[in-house]
Amino acid sequence: MPIIVQKYGGSSIESIEKIRNVAKRISECRKKGFDLVVVVSAMGKTTDYLIDMAHQVSSKPKKREMDVLMSTGEQVSISLLSIALNDIGIAAVSYTGPQLGIKTEGYHTKSRISEIDKEVILSEINRGKVVIVAGFQGVNEKNEITTLGRGGSDTTAVAIAAKLECPCEIYTDVDGVYTVDPRLYPSARKLESISYDEMLELASSGAGVLHTRSIELAEIYNVPLTVALNTGDIKGTIIKELDETMEKTAITGLAVDNSESMITLNGVPHDIKIIADIFAKIAELDINIDMISQTTPINKLVSISFTLPKIDLPQAINILEQYKEKIFTFSYDTFDNISKLTVIGIGMKSQSGVASKMFNILAENDISVHIITTSEIKISYVINPEDQQKAIEAVAREYNL
Amino acid sequence: MPIIVQKYGGSSIESIEKIRNVAKRISECRKKGFDLVVVVSAMGKTTDYLIDMAHQVSSKPKKREMDVLMSTGEQVSISLLSIALNDIGIAAVSYTGPQLGIKTEGYHTKSRISEIDKEVILSEINRGKVVIVAGFQGVNEKNEITTLGRGGSDTTAVAIAAKLECPCEIYTDVDGVYTVDPRLYPSARKLESISYDEMLELASSGAGVLHTRSIELAEIYNVPLTVALNTGDIKGTIIKELDETMEKTAITGLAVDNSESMITLNGVPHDIKIIADIFAKIAELDINIDMISQTTPINKLVSISFTLPKIDLPQAINILEQYKEKIFTFSYDTFDNISKLTVIGIGMKSQSGVASKMFNILAENDISVHIITTSEIKISYVINPEDQQKAIEAVAREYNL
Repeated sequence: MPIIVQKYGGSSIESIEKIRNVAKRISECRKKGFDLVVVVSAMGKTTDYLIDMAHQVSSKPKKREMDVLMSTGEQVSISLLSIALNDIGIAAVSYTGPQLGIKTEGYHTKSRISEIDKEVILSEINRGKVVIVAGFQGVNEKNEITTLGRGGSDTTAVAIAAKLECPCEIYTDVDGVYTVDPRLYPSARKLESISYDEMLELASSGAGVLHTRSIELAEIYNVPLTVALNTGDIKGTIIKELDETMEKTAITGLAVDNSESMITLNGVPHDIKIIADIFAKIAELDINIDMISQTTPINKLVSISFTLPKIDLPQAINILEQYKEKIFTFSYDTFDNISKLTVIGIGMKSQSGVASKMFNILAENDISVHIITTSEIKISYVINPEDQQKAIEAVAREYNL
Repeated sequence: MPIIVQKYGGSSIESIEKIRNVAKRISECRKKGFDLVVVVSAMGKTTDYLIDMAHQVSSKPKKREMDVLMSTGEQVSISLLSIALNDIGIAAVSYTGPQLGIKTEGYHTKSRISEIDKEVILSEINRGKVVIVAGFQGVNEKNEITTLGRGGSDTTAVAIAAKLECPCEIYTDVDGVYTVDPRLYPSARKLESISYDEMLELASSGAGVLHTRSIELAEIYNVPLTVALNTGDIKGTIIKELDETMEKTAITGLAVDNSESMITLNGVPHDIKIIADIFAKIAELDINIDMISQTTPINKLVSISFTLPKIDLPQAINILEQYKEKIFTFSYDTFDNISKLTVIGIGMKSQSGVASKMFNILAENDISVHIITTSEIKISYVINPEDQQKAIEAVAREYNL
């Protein structure tokens, strides 16, 4: 029988009733003649609850131990779903990441899957079992429990589908991928399909539908990926290689990200060593700097603006304070709340002038831009949060999103 | 440095504050110069909560999946305790049962430890780490997660101590082993020491202080075992091989068990095949029959009374109903609530007449006895629950318990 990998997120299994509903959905797929591997996240807000407990114990909990703690959430889910399936007569068996030989590399709390042993899965399928897999977790070369970071269950699902060379369906509480987040722009359209590259840019620009790494993996192994509502009765969005059936518009989607802050460094000597030193110090703290822009030097001094995750702002400020003493011209401003808009479209490759047109739209609406960065298929803008709604509507109208 | 295995039960770590207290206790032991392996249970009522969730999903949850579910409780505990220790500067590292190679045999939800790999523990100790181990759990030869049954964390602790040839300290919410449960008989005395054999009989007769299997293991491997209050400031009870220092009284302790029911079978043909068949059918359901007594035959019919765990009563009744149709003389009575009193003492071996003296005590107090069973160092009585308090007081007074 053909195999499908399905993934159900935390909101799809947040209660006993919802777990029973997912069991029914799986039972229906079985009746249609599919073998199933089902990847689940932790129930509802379990992961947040566990993290909160750890922070009550220590302000800096050891990451190795955070992985031991957080991985229990998915383990509860797999056992309950397997119990629910067996209860309605569907033979099912649960596996944790380590039990399934999901090997990972890299740091605790943000490991990457390096290898999956498909033999266990296939032998259970051959015994007629639905295989229930704990998402988000694995085991490293030291036999320690690891986790893949927020949304990592998507990646578990895609990695298994890649290994089994089968399609992957991600079931969630939204019914597909939209041109713009419908909570921000209610007239946004649902996309029937989107290319891996565009989806990757959307996800990494703040559209929270899928874990970025899962899309990379799907692209590398050419896994057909569907995002759909967890009830299963509405057609979702297919993420696949670019093909003839896809729309050839300049802009496919608009992502909005409010999770970052901006810092502007003033009076920095125009000396690459000094600048590199500042950013090296920040990188040492594992702070992920996203957008950077630098002014041309005036009196051999430059201004540099960059964005970073909000939660990392206090740590970054600690470092910058040290430079105040070292460099007498140096000062900095912080902007806690910014809005990062990113327009994405594979059509940009062939249609020139998207950036300038975007500039016009923003200018016509009196929206000032702090930083711009561009790549082959996307352009990102940092604007003031109070201009966000105006900007979304202007861009969405212009490009019919 | 000398190694000690310590075990903290669910009530000792039921809150973040209590976890911090345990961390402080461990830190003090470190300062005294001990290397430590610390076994923990699930926090507070976690295991009950998880079992309840499973029963909401299914009335007959698969036992394999129950083990996957229940084992998460201890996993949460080990990570939080390890985080708490590292937070106060004590290097600690957590291990689940499967990670530590705690191999088990037997059925899910009541497996037995067959092997422990001590190399991982010793190498962490050599690195200066306190090793935090999830109690109650292991992994079977099929690489499935298993659990050891209620109280199994005691057994994990003793098994590790046996392997490391070191003492084992069980910290709990009582300050030692008493002659009688102080909740039932407030003037009960705390025992300074008790022999393995007596403790084993006490535990298997309803004194809930220790997991029976843990005492068996301690005896086989001669592990010095201490039961003490989790604050650590009161001297507990030492469980060890019988030696000169121990009291030579006829009765060391009195255990009371209210977890059983009694069934009386009437009109059973005096035919060993029929009787064996009834008990075989009950055994097939994995029901653990404890005490049995049979009357002498009258008109080739006998009455048989036996006790069994309360929760198994409905299943047993199902089976007995079938015999009503097969054997026209057959009927049965059930006694949901009974009281089982067990007096235990290594002194019984040398002092004859304990049983008859006990009979006198009960008779003097108008207490009727339904079943009696005796072994070398214990005598158990099934009495009516309404006579329980009277019986406890009479026996305790007589034997100065």
